[in-house]
Amino acid sequence: MAKATLATIAERLEGFEETIVFKLIDRAQYKTNPPAYQPAMSGFEHAGAKSLFELRLRRQESMDAQFGRFCVPEERAFSGHLPRPRRIVKLPDTGLRCSDINAINLTRELMRAYRELLPRICVEGIDGHFGSSVEHDVYALQAISRRVHYGALYVAECKYGDDPAAYRKLIKAKDTAGMLALLTRKDVEDAIVARVRDKVVYAQAKANKRTRIVLDPEAVVWFYRDYIIPLTKKGEVDYLLDRNP
Amino acid sequence: MAKATLATIAERLEGFEETIVFKLIDRAQYKTNPPAYQPAMSGFEHAGAKSLFELRLRRQESMDAQFGRFCVPEERAFSGHLPRPRRIVKLPDTGLRCSDINAINLTRELMRAYRELLPRICVEGIDGHFGSSVEHDVYALQAISRRVHYGALYVAECKYGDDPAAYRKLIKAKDTAGMLALLTRKDVEDAIVARVRDKVVYAQAKANKRTRIVLDPEAVVWFYRDYIIPLTKKGEVDYLLDRNP
Repeated sequence: MAKATLATIAERLEGFEETIVFKLIDRAQYKTNPPAYQPAMSGFEHAGAKSLFELRLRRQESMDAQFGRFCVPEERAFSGHLPRPRRIVKLPDTGLRCSDINAINLTRELMRAYRELLPRICVEGIDGHFGSSVEHDVYALQAISRRVHYGALYVAECKYGDDPAAYRKLIKAKDTAGMLALLTRKDVEDAIVARVRDKVVYAQAKANKRTRIVLDPEAVVWFYRDYIIPLTKKGEVDYLLDRNP
Repeated sequence: MAKATLATIAERLEGFEETIVFKLIDRAQYKTNPPAYQPAMSGFEHAGAKSLFELRLRRQESMDAQFGRFCVPEERAFSGHLPRPRRIVKLPDTGLRCSDINAINLTRELMRAYRELLPRICVEGIDGHFGSSVEHDVYALQAISRRVHYGALYVAECKYGDDPAAYRKLIKAKDTAGMLALLTRKDVEDAIVARVRDKVVYAQAKANKRTRIVLDPEAVVWFYRDYIIPLTKKGEVDYLLDRNP
């Protein structure tokens, strides 16, 4: 890949928005279904204390790992100890300069945030569709994680390249507050949030409200404002601190 | 489930449209990527003549089978010889009256149709994202298959219930043309197609056309008109022929 400009990275991030919105709308068709997240309630033979959600996530990620998903820098698994890839994934030079890309890992924070999001997008209660609920959870989490880690890595590298002297000084001083201030563009964040709100509205404009649960745009706006954007910036700081001089 | 009315079944089918549209938009972000469908080109160790697409589909369906997906009447696997469910899936009475629900199986026709659809929704060529392409193929195929088999089973049972005498006569005579004529409502089909066109347009209305591939609504309209609707009706006839008197 030719060294990406901030504009092309921003457009890539923008492209991820549709996917996140679609996945959340899919998940919102099912109720919160708490038993799917409760330990030892999976209904699986020999599954021990794991919840159905944990089982599904690990199974999906094990398969994905074998197909090479986690060879891509912005893909990050939520489960540990996954099998190695069974196919060779050839990637162009990413332009990233970081000793261990996988050290930039926000999966724990994203998992907590997503579990907070669920009751805001799903109707509270049990509809029995536990399998479908956790299936869509996994797809949503993967889409969210890709967006946050992509932003963290590429935005940070790109902004560094635009003003190496300023960033070098902050990195040397481990001044994370200073880095955050330099990385932040409030006007851009506001534009993202407004755009996401629009996408949630339009994606459901033609849905039949009698049979489709319509996702509240403000829930996704909240999630972007309180989690996706700040966690991306946290990842940017983590990347800069880990960047090879 | 209380015996469903044609109106509630139609609304359920309508709800599936969003999912199909979202999955096709996701897939369309990647090029056609022919090597992903070529035998022996999977890049997998010990995968023999299988294509990456076949491998992915079988792996996903094996996992899904263990989670109980195919215990649901309208879910139908494209791969054979899948593992048995590892959890107990409790389903309410479906109201279906058919000696072998799984005999109503349109997966072969759907697979051919989907492979024809791909070059109509994706840019021709190779972008290297083979893993992502086949991942989204599987999700799209599952959504399409669910819609067609759901319609086949429940619409047929419901229409039979509305005029048992007429259907019994046609079933006895194995008059499939007569059944098709009695099942067909041209005005309803036209309304479905128009609604799907709208959904494809709206779902992408706020996408940035510089970075998102925008799916041609006419490709999805063609797919609905030439395959989804006729294959659903073929499934309805198959159901009626197999229905227990």
